[in-house]
Amino acid sequence: MHIIFLNGEYVARSAAKISVFDRGLLFSDAVYEVISVIGGQLIDMERHIMRLERSLGELSISAFADWSAVCRRLVADNHLQEGLVYLQVSRGVMEERDYRWPAPDTAPTIFAFAQQRTLIANPMAVSGMRIITRPDLRWQRCDIKTTQLLYASLMKMEAVAAGVDDVWMTREDLVTEGTSQNAHIISQDGVLISHQLDRAILPGVTRIETLAQAKSMGLTVEERAFSVDEAKAAAEAFVSSSTLLVMPVVEIDGHRIGDGRPGKRTGQIRQNYIAAVQAGHSTKTEINGE
Amino acid sequence: MHIIFLNGEYVARSAAKISVFDRGLLFSDAVYEVISVIGGQLIDMERHIMRLERSLGELSISAFADWSAVCRRLVADNHLQEGLVYLQVSRGVMEERDYRWPAPDTAPTIFAFAQQRTLIANPMAVSGMRIITRPDLRWQRCDIKTTQLLYASLMKMEAVAAGVDDVWMTREDLVTEGTSQNAHIISQDGVLISHQLDRAILPGVTRIETLAQAKSMGLTVEERAFSVDEAKAAAEAFVSSSTLLVMPVVEIDGHRIGDGRPGKRTGQIRQNYIAAVQAGHSTKTEINGE
Repeated sequence: MHIIFLNGEYVARSAAKISVFDRGLLFSDAVYEVISVIGGQLIDMERHIMRLERSLGELSISAFADWSAVCRRLVADNHLQEGLVYLQVSRGVMEERDYRWPAPDTAPTIFAFAQQRTLIANPMAVSGMRIITRPDLRWQRCDIKTTQLLYASLMKMEAVAAGVDDVWMTREDLVTEGTSQNAHIISQDGVLISHQLDRAILPGVTRIETLAQAKSMGLTVEERAFSVDEAKAAAEAFVSSSTLLVMPVVEIDGHRIGDGRPGKRTGQIRQNYIAAVQAGHSTKTEINGE
Repeated sequence: MHIIFLNGEYVARSAAKISVFDRGLLFSDAVYEVISVIGGQLIDMERHIMRLERSLGELSISAFADWSAVCRRLVADNHLQEGLVYLQVSRGVMEERDYRWPAPDTAPTIFAFAQQRTLIANPMAVSGMRIITRPDLRWQRCDIKTTQLLYASLMKMEAVAAGVDDVWMTREDLVTEGTSQNAHIISQDGVLISHQLDRAILPGVTRIETLAQAKSMGLTVEERAFSVDEAKAAAEAFVSSSTLLVMPVVEIDGHRIGDGRPGKRTGQIRQNYIAAVQAGHSTKTEINGE
């Protein structure tokens, strides 16, 4: 994994450097995407590119590139079979540090890299994830996929310190999402409950297919926020993300979910999701809520 | 302004580049300081360094440098008479992108640069600033001076679009602060009101001296949040920051403050502040609230 895309060129890792005057670095004025790669194929790339373009639009960043060609070349040149491609776009380099945006013709900074990771044979799919809950103190535009990830990173470290796998964040006791995953539960009467698409959560690309698979299995899907207590009382709980795919949650704040083992329907959704993406099928739904 | 400090070296602007795997760039896992320079002197440097060390401590970033020597050398080598020194520290470069922190012995990324700017003869001191108010959607640890400045930058652009100078942000109709300044008002009965130090605002270095000067002028200082209506009804309004120093506000949401001209006491505080920093006097107060 040594070939990195940087502003139109493919360079070695040691050459992948940007100016300290980049607005991504000084103002977190940047958005990103993570696209999973399974069997050498980029999964749901079109939706990721759609979301990237929405994020850029929300911040009025003008950036054009053949995103899919960049991703494909990184997969090929890095011989990536399983893992992810990361793609970031910032508003570009300033002459002087200033809260105001630079001239509209300022070139954005675009870079992308590939990273190997085990996705399908992730042992957590068997063991399940253990979760703790913490207040969601992030900014209130979490629907834009910006690089303002400091709080999520701090929460990940809270999970590490607590000896668990991740944090579900809450606003007024309602679960928003995990540090980098959408959160879902299946109630005792078999209803899949998933936070509605609004400014509190990222409109997950994997979430779309997850909910579609659940529906095709006959589950009722309710898109609304759920409380921590509701989650603890659920029959099953799980997360979805590009790199975790669909991943069971077996414990929340020390409370066992169901019988403490990965839920059967969660397992089925994961299996169906993997089968669908490997077959190159994915449903055609809009990604953007609000 | 061409000599930049980067990880122990003084380099040309074109060489001041950092890896795309820097956590400051990927996770906004970085803090910063802006120290003003007047007459070739760094203003209130010790307090800025104290605050930097507090910010680093809050994020458990280990970084040691002779901060004041770096700042002094940037001022000297860049022949800076008036302007600012910007200093940023991130948790360093990762091998692979991961929300979890890298090994504790990872070297932080440290850079600093000097920038020329007119501080004393800023024409806004005569004209006053015009302000609009907007909801404060930032994260809820604004007491830590992180590079998560995207919302503040978006608000600055809202001000530009509205043809005014800045935005005061509000939580539940109470003013928190400006995009990069602490906000203050002087009520009709002569009380200076300034948001208490808590997680909603940055503990401003200039704010300390501003409040001290006001007290020495015989003003009563109340440290508490004030509403937008209270601000509109005030006799005077102003902001404080390292680069604006003390700057009058003459209009809030189209409503004229006082007679629409910079307040007399505000002008006196500004004058006293400038005199104090030029004389090298500054009061000795703790900067950290909460």
